[in-house]
Amino acid sequence: MMLDSLDETWMTQALKQARLAGERGEVPIGAVIVRNGEIVATGSNWRETWRDPTAHAELVAIQEASRRLGTWRLTECDLYVTLEPCPMCAGTIMLSRIRRLVFGALDAKGGAIVSKVSLLQPGIWNHTPNITSGVLADECASILKDFFQGLRATRG
Amino acid sequence: MMLDSLDETWMTQALKQARLAGERGEVPIGAVIVRNGEIVATGSNWRETWRDPTAHAELVAIQEASRRLGTWRLTECDLYVTLEPCPMCAGTIMLSRIRRLVFGALDAKGGAIVSKVSLLQPGIWNHTPNITSGVLADECASILKDFFQGLRATRG
Repeated sequence: MMLDSLDETWMTQALKQARLAGERGEVPIGAVIVRNGEIVATGSNWRETWRDPTAHAELVAIQEASRRLGTWRLTECDLYVTLEPCPMCAGTIMLSRIRRLVFGALDAKGGAIVSKVSLLQPGIWNHTPNITSGVLADECASILKDFFQGLRATRG
Repeated sequence: MMLDSLDETWMTQALKQARLAGERGEVPIGAVIVRNGEIVATGSNWRETWRDPTAHAELVAIQEASRRLGTWRLTECDLYVTLEPCPMCAGTIMLSRIRRLVFGALDAKGGAIVSKVSLLQPGIWNHTPNITSGVLADECASILKDFFQGLRATRG
């Protein structure tokens, strides 16, 4: 079990990625992948810019980590993401053998870890990560709330 | 409801993609995406070659269709895939607004449509596709069985 303060350090980096997405007009969600105490990949939401339904922060980070490490097996990697993963991302985390998933805010509409379904609960699949939720949850939720409020103001 | 014979026509194309994967030494799974009676994208399994945990046939095909159509919303597209999708691919099918999912063989270990979980059952998510299973199921299963038997023989 890592110290909470270290989890918050990495989640702060994921929040930076989320802000980068927001500056591009994307829903602000960010992720980092940590291995041996270092960030090996970052990711943020590129869906609208790339016109790619798979370009969620987690997938972008996992693909980057696989490229950098030269393997699809990310067995010593921990993923930090600002929002509870959707089914696609939860499935990708499982397939890539990510060791630990740490997320910030809950996603009541689309979350596949605890909110809508519990896709990665032990006993279903060969591999599931350890999971920690709620790290910097308020900040992770605020950045999303502010983004959508800004959208509504712009669209009047 | 489409005629079974048309579904078999498209599944035959997905099987061709599966064979291409097998010739590369990848687990032979293939997919095609059909829109207005034409194939707009094909995909096969590239996981080992690309060292990418996300390079399943369905994801490769969906990303290709998004590139070709210039949008992440594949609302008029139907996906044919030789094997029951995993959670990642089922989630991606949902996110991309694919209209209809047609698959061949069941995946007892990893299937997220009916075998291990029923991720796309109506009532959970905003969008789920219509689903048809079992199209050319024997051929779709045989190509996988032959591949794994060949692997075991080689590894002796």
